[in-house]
This record gives sequence, structure tokens and C-alpha cells, in this order.
Amino acid sequence: MTKITPVVLSGGSGTRLWPLSTPTRPKQFLPLTGSLTMFQLTVMRASDPSLYESPIIVASEAHAELIVAQLAEIGVTDATIVLEPCARNTAPAIALAALAASNPEALLLVMPSDHAILDLDAFQQATALAKKLAEDDWLVTFGIAPTGPETGYGYIAAGPLLQDGCHAVASFVEKPARELAETMLAKGDHFWNGGIFLFRAGSFLDEMQLHAPEILEAAMASVEGCSRQGQLLRPDAAAFTASPSDSIDYAVMEKAVRVATVPVDMGWSDVGSWDALKEIGLADLSGNVLTGNVRQIEAQGNLIRSDGIRISAIGVENLIIVAAGNEVLIVPRGQSQKVKSLA
Amino acid sequence: MTKITPVVLSGGSGTRLWPLSTPTRPKQFLPLTGSLTMFQLTVMRASDPSLYESPIIVASEAHAELIVAQLAEIGVTDATIVLEPCARNTAPAIALAALAASNPEALLLVMPSDHAILDLDAFQQATALAKKLAEDDWLVTFGIAPTGPETGYGYIAAGPLLQDGCHAVASFVEKPARELAETMLAKGDHFWNGGIFLFRAGSFLDEMQLHAPEILEAAMASVEGCSRQGQLLRPDAAAFTASPSDSIDYAVMEKAVRVATVPVDMGWSDVGSWDALKEIGLADLSGNVLTGNVRQIEAQGNLIRSDGIRISAIGVENLIIVAAGNEVLIVPRGQSQKVKSLA
Repeated sequence: MTKITPVVLSGGSGTRLWPLSTPTRPKQFLPLTGSLTMFQLTVMRASDPSLYESPIIVASEAHAELIVAQLAEIGVTDATIVLEPCARNTAPAIALAALAASNPEALLLVMPSDHAILDLDAFQQATALAKKLAEDDWLVTFGIAPTGPETGYGYIAAGPLLQDGCHAVASFVEKPARELAETMLAKGDHFWNGGIFLFRAGSFLDEMQLHAPEILEAAMASVEGCSRQGQLLRPDAAAFTASPSDSIDYAVMEKAVRVATVPVDMGWSDVGSWDALKEIGLADLSGNVLTGNVRQIEAQGNLIRSDGIRISAIGVENLIIVAAGNEVLIVPRGQSQKVKSLA
Repeated sequence: MTKITPVVLSGGSGTRLWPLSTPTRPKQFLPLTGSLTMFQLTVMRASDPSLYESPIIVASEAHAELIVAQLAEIGVTDATIVLEPCARNTAPAIALAALAASNPEALLLVMPSDHAILDLDAFQQATALAKKLAEDDWLVTFGIAPTGPETGYGYIAAGPLLQDGCHAVASFVEKPARELAETMLAKGDHFWNGGIFLFRAGSFLDEMQLHAPEILEAAMASVEGCSRQGQLLRPDAAAFTASPSDSIDYAVMEKAVRVATVPVDMGWSDVGSWDALKEIGLADLSGNVLTGNVRQIEAQGNLIRSDGIRISAIGVENLIIVAAGNEVLIVPRGQSQKVKSLA
């Protein structure tokens, strides 16, 4: 049985969970949901040696030390770490991983490193179903069961049923207007595109050759000029920098023909805002999610978190209060998307 | 013309404006309303050399250095600073000041050091009227024009008109129930007791002899055993500690017969809570009172103040947010009296 090679993408910039996340420590490297970071949880999610090969991490040179240290903390020493010379979005990043894979038959499970998944059984079951399709040369995208008419996500429209509840993809719908999002939610045959994919390295590279040859060419040239330092791979900077910047969705998935989706309801969150973190946090009886040096009196429904100075909250409701370093943020729940403008 | 001797009482403990005020730096020593501290503003309020003698400060030993430094900042080097060995409330403190005064004829203007007064002309006019009565051996209390049915203050019931709009005091009403406060406000002949007094040292000491002889005796004994170090006077600790603890209101004013009040509307605030400070603060067009390292987006009606780390507030309304040292407080306006329990 072929094992799966996890590919962990770690390119997030960390402005939406300011002041905790910062460019030098974006959110995947923070212990936001527990004692481990989301990067560590992502790697561990696909670490059963009976099912998975050692992982390929694609990340920024700026985070190389952080990644080695965080992998060591969870006992992972055999990862291949591909350091992008610059950010060129997901299509070039995944091309690097596919080229770094052992052979074209390798099954790549591509995962963003900054998403939370609460139901690991559901994740593993979906992965098993996706693997069967990938072995049959489908490019598989995980279809997250939507929980609301979100307008910030891409949607996957399910086409004909293939097997085991999996569908061919009819089309992708990028960030829809509210009305369209509600229609798709009501129809029940649309899923969120969470950016989790499973495919053979060769299948993906073949589709890149067809639909994004410039990206593939740049990736191949940069891998050819690659330098290796232990587990660290450094593709050639000039060659990689010449690549167009594009997402895997635009560059490949929306154009490829043999694309399938595995619907999955696995307690997924992109932790894309403080509001999202409040939703998945463990609340006390008053609905407060409290972390760190925090005390409250008669407060309800707040997310309050400090990594430094003490926060004392009295009688406040439905606020997000975050202290980190020399910064403290206060914003009502529901407005945390405005945080980006401050970071 | 006899000049007035200002007596500045500085015994506040500083729990209600936590985290900014602390026992080592209670609110009178903080620049809460501008660039000068309330202690400095109080001294300067009665510093016109054509009207006032040099002041007598009654304060805690713990704040001696702070007081000397803050007086030096405003160019006052001739104050007499009486350092209480322990806190025994206002009656013993004022007794010390009366005994430290140059002679029994001295006119003492007793002022708490932690109140704000916005209309200085009104204050000076009231002082001139009170002086006339004090010279006629009345104990005069300033009657603050009430602006609402506050239940946290003592009230003065005006009796017969004496002169210039001043009245004999019919009675004192300690912290009334809400209904009574509303009745008094509606009647228009009740004033807040702001703890500002004007009387001859001798008049006051005579009344103490009648109504609070134990306090007077302890004060006299402690002044007898006093040590002097430049402008600092240190009454004998054992003798002063033996004094009963009582307020001037209970010990003397409520019992004395020849007590008058000068009604005055002078923008007075006891700055007894963050809500009170919000009320007297200079607000921007969105009703925010912002001080220090603070930025806001779409916020309205807040008091936000930082003496240290940066506060970023987005979209919040009617909150009090205060950062000082390693503490940050968040409480809705109207609930700031609960801060005491945290300090």
C-alpha cells in the first residue's frame, strides 16, 4: 500500500490575529487552540507511520529556525523543509513540494498549516476516501461542510457522484455575494474549499504543464538550482522569483478536468479572525474564552487573552480583548475583521 | 486684611482609579486632568500671594518625597508639610493643621487634594464670601450645587439666609437613599458637602474641645512631641495613633451650632471613579476622552488611557479602558465603582 506524503504549507502572513500574530510569528506558529501550535497540530494530524511518509514543509526562509524547533518539540526530525525564497502564492509552493517528492507516484496530502480541525476521525476517513480517488489519478479537494453563508470562502459545486459519497467537481465559485452564498447553502450540494488537497505528484505536475506552464518551469528551474543543508532545501531564488504568483485554485484546480471532492464535516476553521478563534475556543459558564493572565467579574461572552500584562475585565460583554507584548486590542465580537487594518 | 492659610489634605488611598492610582501613588499625585496633578492644582488654586499665606499640607509619611517634589515643580518651597504617622480620618488631620497654624486667628481654607474644580472664578468668589463669615466666627462649608441625585455624597440642608446668598446650615444628611436624594435635589435647598471648609483655627479648635475632646487632646499631645526637619513636621506617632478616627463632619460640623454654607457652582468633581473622570475630560468629536498611547477606529464615548503599552480600540462604545504598568482594565461606563474590588 502506498503511503501518503503530507505537504504542509506555511505561508501565512499573520495580520488578522494581531497583536498576537506578527510577520515574524504568524498564527500557524502560535499555540492558539491549546498547548501546541496549529503548525504542530497540522503535522501531527498526518503522522501515523502506517499511513504517512515523512512530511514536506513549504515555508518562508524567515521561519526556518522556528519550524525546525517546533518540529523537534513534537519529535519530527525527518521532514523535508523547502524554503521559498519569496512568497508566490500556493501554486508555485505546491509545485516545489511535488518536485521534491520521491517520485511522480507519490500521493501528496496538501494542508494549510493554520487551520483548526476538531474532528480528527472525520479527517482521517475523508483522507482515506480521497486517497482512493487520487490513486485513480483524480485531483481531490476536501469539501468542507458549510455552517453558514460565508462570503469570504471559495465554494465547490458538487457534480456527478463518483463513489463513497465523493463527487466530481462541477465548478468552483470564488468568494460569492451574500445572496449567492445563501442559495448555495440552501441547495446543500456546495462545499467550502478549505485548501486541502490530495493527488499524485505526477497528476498535479501534468495539470500544471497544461494550465500553468510558466509556474512549473520556474519551479523546475529553481529546484534544479537548489542547495541542500541537512533537511533544508533552498530552491534557486532568481528562478523562483521569476514565477507568476497564483493560487492552486486559479492556476490548476479550476482548469483541470479530473477534479473530485470529498465532502467532510470535521469541525474545520480557518481561524481567520479573533471571532473565529472565539467560536472554536473552550468557553466557561459565562461564555468567556479566557487565556493567560486574565481575570473577570460579571463578564459574558468575551474572548480575553493575554500573553503578558494582566487584563482585568468587569461587566463587559461580547468583546475581544487581546494583550501581547506592548499592544492591547479591544474590539466587539463580529468586528474582528477590522483588525487587519491595524497590524 | 488677614490672608487665608490653605490647608491641603492628602490622605486618599487610591483604590478607585486603579490601575492608574495605587497606594504608593494615589490619585491626587497623578496628572489626571491635564499636565499637572490634582495635588498641584489644589495648591495652585489658593496661591495668589495677595490673598493667601503659604500652605499647610497634611499628608502621609509615605508621600513626603512625592509632595516635596511636586511642590517644587510648581515653585512652592515654603509650605509646611505635616506628616501624619498614621491615617485617622479628617478630624485629627485638620486638628494638626489648626495647631500648626501661626495663631488662633488664622483663617484656614481646608481642601481635599484630589478634587477637580473647573470654574476657578466661582471658587474664588465663594472663598471671599466664606471668608467674611469665618471672620465672624462661623465654621463655613462650601455647598456644591448638585447636578444629580447622587447617593454617594453627604448633603447640606440650607437653613436661614445669612448674607450674600450664604445660609446657616439646618442639618447634614449623610449618603441618602435614592428617593431622598431626588427629593432634596427637587427642593433646591440642599447642596453636596464637598469637604471644603473655611474657618478660624481657633473657632475650629474651640468646637473640637466641645465635641471631640479626645481627638483634640491626641492632636495636641502629638504636636507637642513633634520633630521638625526643614519644612517637614512629624507629630509624635504614639500620641497621634491614640486618637479616635473620625471625619470632620461627624466629629465637629454636624454638632457645632455656628455652621454656615456658601452655595457654589464651580464645576466640582471628586474624581471618585473612572466615570467621573470621563465626565470632566475633554472629549473628541466622537465623545472619546483619549490620553496617552492610544488609537481608535470607529469608537464612541469611551475613556481610553494608557501610561504604557499601546491600546488599539476598534468599534467599541462607552467603555473605560485604562492601561498602567502591567495592568489593563476594561469596564463599561456606569460600572466603574466596581473597580475598587480589584485594586
